[in-house]
Amino acid sequence: MDADGLTPQKQFQEHFFTCASRGDVKTIEDVLQQGTVKIDATNDHGWTALMFAARTGQDKVVRLLLDHGCDTTVMNKSCQTAADIAAFWNHTAVLTELEKKGQTSDSQPQNFCNYFGYNPLDRYAHKRKDEQWLEEKLRDQSTVILLFHDLGLVVTKGEKLAAQSRATQPCHFTFKDTSALFEELGTEKILLFLGLGRLQPDKTDGPSPPTSDKEEHLPAWFALDVTSISQEKILSIKEGLEIASSPFPGLFQLPEKEAGIVAQARSLLAWHQRYKFCPTCGSAAAVEEAGYKRRCQKEGCPSLKGVHNTSYPRTDPVVIMLIVSQDGKKCLLGRGKRFPGRMYSCLAGFMEPGETIEDAVRREVYEESGVRVGRVQYHSSQPFPLPASLMIGCLGYATSETISVDKEELEDAQWFTRQQVAEVQTGAPLPTDALTNPRAEGPSFFLPPAQAIAHQLVKAWLRMSPNL
Amino acid sequence: MDADGLTPQKQFQEHFFTCASRGDVKTIEDVLQQGTVKIDATNDHGWTALMFAARTGQDKVVRLLLDHGCDTTVMNKSCQTAADIAAFWNHTAVLTELEKKGQTSDSQPQNFCNYFGYNPLDRYAHKRKDEQWLEEKLRDQSTVILLFHDLGLVVTKGEKLAAQSRATQPCHFTFKDTSALFEELGTEKILLFLGLGRLQPDKTDGPSPPTSDKEEHLPAWFALDVTSISQEKILSIKEGLEIASSPFPGLFQLPEKEAGIVAQARSLLAWHQRYKFCPTCGSAAAVEEAGYKRRCQKEGCPSLKGVHNTSYPRTDPVVIMLIVSQDGKKCLLGRGKRFPGRMYSCLAGFMEPGETIEDAVRREVYEESGVRVGRVQYHSSQPFPLPASLMIGCLGYATSETISVDKEELEDAQWFTRQQVAEVQTGAPLPTDALTNPRAEGPSFFLPPAQAIAHQLVKAWLRMSPNL
Ligand SMILES: [Zn+2]
Ligand SMILES: [Zn+2]
Repeated sequence: MDADGLTPQKQFQEHFFTCASRGDVKTIEDVLQQGTVKIDATNDHGWTALMFAARTGQDKVVRLLLDHGCDTTVMNKSCQTAADIAAFWNHTAVLTELEKKGQTSDSQPQNFCNYFGYNPLDRYAHKRKDEQWLEEKLRDQSTVILLFHDLGLVVTKGEKLAAQSRATQPCHFTFKDTSALFEELGTEKILLFLGLGRLQPDKTDGPSPPTSDKEEHLPAWFALDVTSISQEKILSIKEGLEIASSPFPGLFQLPEKEAGIVAQARSLLAWHQRYKFCPTCGSAAAVEEAGYKRRCQKEGCPSLKGVHNTSYPRTDPVVIMLIVSQDGKKCLLGRGKRFPGRMYSCLAGFMEPGETIEDAVRREVYEESGVRVGRVQYHSSQPFPLPASLMIGCLGYATSETISVDKEELEDAQWFTRQQVAEVQTGAPLPTDALTNPRAEGPSFFLPPAQAIAHQLVKAWLRMSPNL
Repeated sequence: MDADGLTPQKQFQEHFFTCASRGDVKTIEDVLQQGTVKIDATNDHGWTALMFAARTGQDKVVRLLLDHGCDTTVMNKSCQTAADIAAFWNHTAVLTELEKKGQTSDSQPQNFCNYFGYNPLDRYAHKRKDEQWLEEKLRDQSTVILLFHDLGLVVTKGEKLAAQSRATQPCHFTFKDTSALFEELGTEKILLFLGLGRLQPDKTDGPSPPTSDKEEHLPAWFALDVTSISQEKILSIKEGLEIASSPFPGLFQLPEKEAGIVAQARSLLAWHQRYKFCPTCGSAAAVEEAGYKRRCQKEGCPSLKGVHNTSYPRTDPVVIMLIVSQDGKKCLLGRGKRFPGRMYSCLAGFMEPGETIEDAVRREVYEESGVRVGRVQYHSSQPFPLPASLMIGCLGYATSETISVDKEELEDAQWFTRQQVAEVQTGAPLPTDALTNPRAEGPSFFLPPAQAIAHQLVKAWLRMSPNL
């Protein structure tokens, strides 16, 4: 290290950033050609050369960096991309360059897709009553069957996989693999037809894809409930299987392109587990329509006359919201009583009958924290398979500030500054014991992981009004 | 009439509009002083003087009209306000004038409030388990009790009221009025505590109000199920009562400031009607928590261990969406098989387990009409008490145009132009037989009434991108 305390490599980088800020196209070009600095290198605040150029409106540098294939999606520690920075400082020439590459955030904004929200299957609902078609599909060798034992997905154990962050691999069975199970289950089985489709190899953050017109030839997906079969028998089908009995962390470590399919199956199976009887008359109800209906078996039951929700799967709408303070500089986070370690998250709660989404947000926030909310803005939604909720994610704008925590519902609620939240949101990985040990090293609080919609709401707020 | 075919009054008006367009402040002032033309008079296209001034950027005329108390909320037949017109033509001085009066549409936009969406009650959920407090409240003379017989609200018959568009007046009973009913029902009754609050005399389109801090002194609201009591006995409590047995049109003719309360009560009662038994074990379930819970009576039932949705009211999320064509000039409307007369409406459908709002919109539109949808934009929500849905209203942007109607679901679906829709939306009242007689005089199709969220979605689209 030299007198400034910087390694030579760091010095090269700093020089690179300075040239980007100043618009020194020639030097940037040389550096890139020599390869002394990586094009997407960041400083301690997470800033790239592209961001420095965007900050000072150096559109020629921006074009040069883009031509050399820089990554425009990198976010700094305040969760801003180069496009956010250019927009904030109103550098339209830079924005135009970024737009050409399709990288600005708000030209015809895409819908945000949460974990569990991406599902590549066409549900093909019109075939749910076609038993012959379903039987044929089930036996097709391209068909994928997922197995669930007491709502636990059967997965492939993998030592290598375990080290990755998305470590749970659903095991894809064929009818041939599972014919002994089908035999043992007989006719009383719960078999769900999930739809037709194929896992996308390059799933990114976009919305679920429309299926092609030739979809009838795509693989069919089913889920089979094997709760009544012994675990030994299930695990002996193949080598290296295990049952992800506990939803945490397994359900949150699925490959993103497959998480939505598992959510669909698990939500339905959770309904079957708790709704075996007709709630109108108390008689047993039989499974129909490929697992999407339960029909009361008692003649004359009122549920058989007309269409009633008693026969169909239940989805519970939940509001979850990040509340922003009146000055826009703070957000409201709370700690549920059973939250791990030092975790804080968005407030949330079940919607009640006869309520709008907006009023549910206001009611829940007032009940739990005493804070009043005015305008509410929808952000995105997330199916949540524990057991079968629809998380409706919103930002809400406070009209009061004083917090009065309902100790029945929450352990604590606090206003957090943009800075506090940005630090933990983009900070280093937590020490492994931070989830459970309140005295572990690390930040004073943490947010739920990226798979939680709460995390995405915080991120959306940080990005919405950059504070540079 | 003169040679132009205009009455003198019409001629005065035309002159007034011309002066507004030209910025002739002096003449406008004279006309307003003489009172020869009403300030909010409209021409055949629904344009006011304020709109003409806004169209041509006459900010002085706008200020003058505002000072004389003109109505800034008037919409022309294309559903544009003066602010929409000024914004479209980028007349910032006019917008500034309108803003001073708080009349522009998008500076901190208010949440849109649908019929059934406004509810002045604080649900005061933390008191639902406090039986003593509830008993005292019930007997308070300020308390309002609503009665429902087989989901039909007991209302006040009124010949005068019947001529108005909102003709259904819920009858407000006291405990004294209904003590005989309480006696007859005994302990097996279904009595809902709805919350605390007072009807707002001047309810407009804003969001539901926050209740004051002294809310404990506000009137309590209850709903009582009197299905097991004879209609004669109920109707004899007071003179002029009747039971609004059929939901149409009664439920849609309530005063707007009260419709949300009725929706809340009816949704809950519809749940009690169909969910008398525990769906997990088939045993009877008893009412608890002021009507917000049903608890299985069988010892050892899994529903008693932990928290399960089987014990709580059910709300079904439904997506309802107006789909806009790729060129932005047309919208997609469909006709359900049981729709009255020539009605067309937005496509809609129940959400499925494991699905985002956005994907549900895309799936339903594709299933019903064959049209592909890309981006989806949330607009507003509406609780819908038939029996207990949450309507999630969205605009969706088509990525294909060819329609292929699913005849199982719909009778027809078509693209309608902005002009076609604006005409029927702001047109004259329908002939009284248009709802039932397909050959009745009048427009070639019609939209659901303003109480339907579908109507508001169409209106939102018309207003969103004015086509002047
Ligand atoms: Zn039944
Ligand atoms: Zn039970």
